[in-house]
Amino acid sequence: MNADISRERENATFNVEKLTNILDGGIEKTKRRREIQSLVISDPDFQSEDLNFLSRSERYDAAVKKSAQMILKLRKYGISDPEEIYCYKSCVHRGRSEPLDLHLGMFLPTLLNQASPEQVDTFFIPAWNLEIIGTYAQTEMGHGTHLRGLETTATYDPATQEFVLNSPTVTSIKWWPGGLGKTSNHAIVLAQLHTQGKCHGLHAFIVPLRSMNTHIPLPGVVVGDIGPKFGFDEVDNGYLKLENVRIPRNNMLMKYAKVEADGTYVKPPSDKLTYGTMVFIRSMIVGEAGRALAKSCTIAIRYSAVRHQSEIRPGEPEPQILDYQTQQYKLFPLLATAYAYSFVGQYMNQVYHRITGDISQGDYSELPELHALSAGLKAFTTWTASAGIEVCRMACGGHGYSRCSALPDIYVNFVPTCTYEGENTVMMLQTARFLIKSYRQALAGHKLSGIVSYLNESEFRLQPQAVSSRPTVVNINDLQSLVEAYKLRAAKLVELAAKSIQQELQRRVSQEDAWNNSAIDLVRASDAHCHYVVVKLFASKLGEIKDTAVHSVLSTLALLYALQGITQHSGDFLQAGLLNAPQLTQVSQSLKELLAQLRPNAVALVDAFDYCDEMLNSVLGRYDGNVYEHMFEWARRSPLNKTEVHESYHKYLKPLQAKL
Amino acid sequence: MNADISRERENATFNVEKLTNILDGGIEKTKRRREIQSLVISDPDFQSEDLNFLSRSERYDAAVKKSAQMILKLRKYGISDPEEIYCYKSCVHRGRSEPLDLHLGMFLPTLLNQASPEQVDTFFIPAWNLEIIGTYAQTEMGHGTHLRGLETTATYDPATQEFVLNSPTVTSIKWWPGGLGKTSNHAIVLAQLHTQGKCHGLHAFIVPLRSMNTHIPLPGVVVGDIGPKFGFDEVDNGYLKLENVRIPRNNMLMKYAKVEADGTYVKPPSDKLTYGTMVFIRSMIVGEAGRALAKSCTIAIRYSAVRHQSEIRPGEPEPQILDYQTQQYKLFPLLATAYAYSFVGQYMNQVYHRITGDISQGDYSELPELHALSAGLKAFTTWTASAGIEVCRMACGGHGYSRCSALPDIYVNFVPTCTYEGENTVMMLQTARFLIKSYRQALAGHKLSGIVSYLNESEFRLQPQAVSSRPTVVNINDLQSLVEAYKLRAAKLVELAAKSIQQELQRRVSQEDAWNNSAIDLVRASDAHCHYVVVKLFASKLGEIKDTAVHSVLSTLALLYALQGITQHSGDFLQAGLLNAPQLTQVSQSLKELLAQLRPNAVALVDAFDYCDEMLNSVLGRYDGNVYEHMFEWARRSPLNKTEVHESYHKYLKPLQAKL
Repeated sequence: MNADISRERENATFNVEKLTNILDGGIEKTKRRREIQSLVISDPDFQSEDLNFLSRSERYDAAVKKSAQMILKLRKYGISDPEEIYCYKSCVHRGRSEPLDLHLGMFLPTLLNQASPEQVDTFFIPAWNLEIIGTYAQTEMGHGTHLRGLETTATYDPATQEFVLNSPTVTSIKWWPGGLGKTSNHAIVLAQLHTQGKCHGLHAFIVPLRSMNTHIPLPGVVVGDIGPKFGFDEVDNGYLKLENVRIPRNNMLMKYAKVEADGTYVKPPSDKLTYGTMVFIRSMIVGEAGRALAKSCTIAIRYSAVRHQSEIRPGEPEPQILDYQTQQYKLFPLLATAYAYSFVGQYMNQVYHRITGDISQGDYSELPELHALSAGLKAFTTWTASAGIEVCRMACGGHGYSRCSALPDIYVNFVPTCTYEGENTVMMLQTARFLIKSYRQALAGHKLSGIVSYLNESEFRLQPQAVSSRPTVVNINDLQSLVEAYKLRAAKLVELAAKSIQQELQRRVSQEDAWNNSAIDLVRASDAHCHYVVVKLFASKLGEIKDTAVHSVLSTLALLYALQGITQHSGDFLQAGLLNAPQLTQVSQSLKELLAQLRPNAVALVDAFDYCDEMLNSVLGRYDGNVYEHMFEWARRSPLNKTEVHESYHKYLKPLQAKL
Repeated sequence: MNADISRERENATFNVEKLTNILDGGIEKTKRRREIQSLVISDPDFQSEDLNFLSRSERYDAAVKKSAQMILKLRKYGISDPEEIYCYKSCVHRGRSEPLDLHLGMFLPTLLNQASPEQVDTFFIPAWNLEIIGTYAQTEMGHGTHLRGLETTATYDPATQEFVLNSPTVTSIKWWPGGLGKTSNHAIVLAQLHTQGKCHGLHAFIVPLRSMNTHIPLPGVVVGDIGPKFGFDEVDNGYLKLENVRIPRNNMLMKYAKVEADGTYVKPPSDKLTYGTMVFIRSMIVGEAGRALAKSCTIAIRYSAVRHQSEIRPGEPEPQILDYQTQQYKLFPLLATAYAYSFVGQYMNQVYHRITGDISQGDYSELPELHALSAGLKAFTTWTASAGIEVCRMACGGHGYSRCSALPDIYVNFVPTCTYEGENTVMMLQTARFLIKSYRQALAGHKLSGIVSYLNESEFRLQPQAVSSRPTVVNINDLQSLVEAYKLRAAKLVELAAKSIQQELQRRVSQEDAWNNSAIDLVRASDAHCHYVVVKLFASKLGEIKDTAVHSVLSTLALLYALQGITQHSGDFLQAGLLNAPQLTQVSQSLKELLAQLRPNAVALVDAFDYCDEMLNSVLGRYDGNVYEHMFEWARRSPLNKTEVHESYHKYLKPLQAKL
């Protein structure tokens, strides 16, 4: 064990294990997570060469191998709780996506949720036994987030009682679905349903893609891998072009909407049925943002504790780089953010499960708010976390750029969350739509409840005078007071966006153009709303913490999180008259003091995330801090070192020398 | 040609070719650049498979092949002007780094600058003819930017008149030098010189690494590739461990410092001699930041002109995504930044060449200012450009994540500039040191000249009252007035940082701790200083533009750049009393108007960067806008599609099915 990092751990003021339990959601959960982890880590079937040393095709191959093993072992161990499956899968694939993700996470659940009972009988068991390997083919080359624009067609032919599927344009080719390129032999295809000369919009169809015997693509099916990406090397994201592919009528998922034998279309009872899944996945992503940042902070902070560089005081030994204020300023606010997002993720998960009960009772009343919240928070957290991972990486200097740091991988595997499951800017605008609607309801005298209640007349407009002339009452050292300030900032920016729309309308542009011409303000309002929610949830989490020492260090983190947000958006707070210029100077001073206060607990705070070395897979983030020896050892194993002299020397350099 | 993009070009209000000439520095330069480009593009020896489809080893192999060809062709065509060599090389390697970069860019120049005339006679011709392939080995595993910490030793042995080179610790292993792993047979090694029992600090030594005949590493030389990285796949960044490697006395570069036969050390006449190279490289990086952003904007803006998505007005066709205000707000400020940095790059290049004349006359007077400026601007521009590339990538939605967009490559190849040639935070602090020193000189009544003259008493403290009570006079629609505002913001933040140091000193901490405890403020001051310089240089560039239409569109860009910076740092401007809250609302409104104004010229503005398709190598950024067909065609060529059924099916999935 490296002496620096040991000393860091000795100096911590709180019990790391207690904080780990809080993050896991209880002592039992920590225990179970560790059990599952060691099942995987000690399993020789899951050992492999460092993926960084493999080609794309080898990485895909290794992932299929592990996924196949994983299916067998999950059944062998009887792991069936979704959270435990998720945990096991994360360990097997070290947090990476894998070729069977969509089979397990979308194909099977969609069957269960949208297939009629007879269809479940037909398809579920083969799919459960991996005879049918399926994916979920929604996105097309030309359309992603805007689902109504999808172009694939499924035209019903009553003569044969079949649907005929087609990709009528280049842009209609299905593009991106995971596992589509090489792994799956079936897909649930989203297509515009045409019957009796009429289009009834998007519906889901089970389409066989490859022979269940030979795995060769079926006639009319043009399918393959979409090629190398920034990351996701293990996943065969695919394309699918359908050329008059005929499937039986029974292959349309008919739990809700139906097409009868003669082609008569029967409408589904509600169109809100798919909302739940979207909300669930976006909520999961919020937690994922916390985890991605937690991993990155673990690596960067541990490394900063063992890396010595330059000098603060001449003649003294080189300090740990964690002693530089600039390094603390890069990493500690991100550490606070990782905690904030972890707690927000927990909260979203709880709310989702609570509301799911209501939904199954047919009560959709809370769904719009949750939908709006999950959309905005997904965007808010993924943007910040993505940028934060890169800050962590660069805080490790040159070595952060090496694949041995694991940080490049964390980045490329996390950053697509900004785009998938709803492009972030579109998500922000969805939340804004809810905020503006709520604001207008409040203006009209309607009493708002829930998270947007701050837009109520009574709360927001108690003071008739302009906000900027209101006396400043924010206490910058009091978290509750800061929550209030964030709330008023959000209210102010929602009002500003609403006024921008109003002004546009007064210039006689259409509603739609007024919306688009105010989009910058709308995104800003959503961002402020989400920021308020995160600060508020972090603050209320503190109320649940019993242990004094843990409470103390988390309070410091929460305050740091809130003050850091204020310095980043100081213009908003000043403009709204929520803070004045001298207070802003105090905020800067307080921030510096909080950094110094956190310094002794930094390593313990990342230890509490409890990522074992096998999961982190980072030379820089090793628990024992023995970075340099292992970096050298890792490099020596790299493929270019398999031979002392690379063949290019004989092929090009030697002949070149002869010619000069 | 795609109809959308044709229409964009028809609607432009200025002559694209004229703007291209301005960016190139004249009509003749544009012509010559295009000549060189077509030499490369039409050359069958430089064709290769898409690098994205190759393994790391294949990419290295392909790069060595091209580099060898390049050496032959440069000589064949007699291209010898450094700028033209740079242009040719960029075309051959499509802007990527390559294995011989350090041989050409560091080894040969260092020989010429630091070797004695006799040494030049010995080493230069073999190096010129690639018998000696060299690299420059400075960075070690444990030390990068902080050069004094390097640990490699070169101990003089008068008995044999040799130096004995050693890597005494793990951290002293040379790490990162390009071309070191596999390509080079020599290195200029930076090592602590020990002679007659005394250490004389870092000196440069020519160390043979591999047999010039067999290319096998020499005894005592442990050399290899450091393994896969985020990018730079073509470069064999290497490690080097030296174990009692003996080299003749004459292998120390002795133009300035010397070790005589008996071991007597002779000091160099000045220690500022290596400043010039650092300044030059950092200045180059500023231009590179402009180019990286220019490429990224070209791709994202062209794609946004052909991509249609969602709806603004119901019932109307899907709009080009470039019509969304949020898309404009992402891309147009970055477009403005790309222009800004291109002009700053031109300026830095001119200043460097002017000062080089002075330096060769022994006049170092302007060097400290240029050194400080190049350090800060390198950090300022590379941070912004790196983040900007990712904004461009994500503005392309999912397709930006595909390697076919080229954006992932642009990012991973550019982002190391934040770390190499001086880590950015350290660079910002170097600039801050100069600013604080200047500020103190001004306080002491010394009259400052040059770029920091704004810190003079007379300029800065004309008004004895507090800055915040000064009447606001900024005209937000006037660029010169905004330059003034940026200047006063910089002055204010330099003052704030100086005061922070002062306060720390009053708390009786040491100078060094006071500095570290004010580091956040110091970086902020440097950032504001650099921002001011960029706005100022952009504004003064406008004065050189004769063509009215070009002048008009560049003025709009410059204003957008300045106002966008104000909204991003609105807190600073409010806090310093340079703007008031209502003005800030006007700034937001103005920004939106500028976006709308730029919209018709967006495609023409990226066309003016004049990146041909072969150089961009981006399916999304194609000049003809025919994106989707080519994306499909590209994907079909990808390696995973070489067989219809991937072998992993037979190895793992089929057996799995049998077991379930």
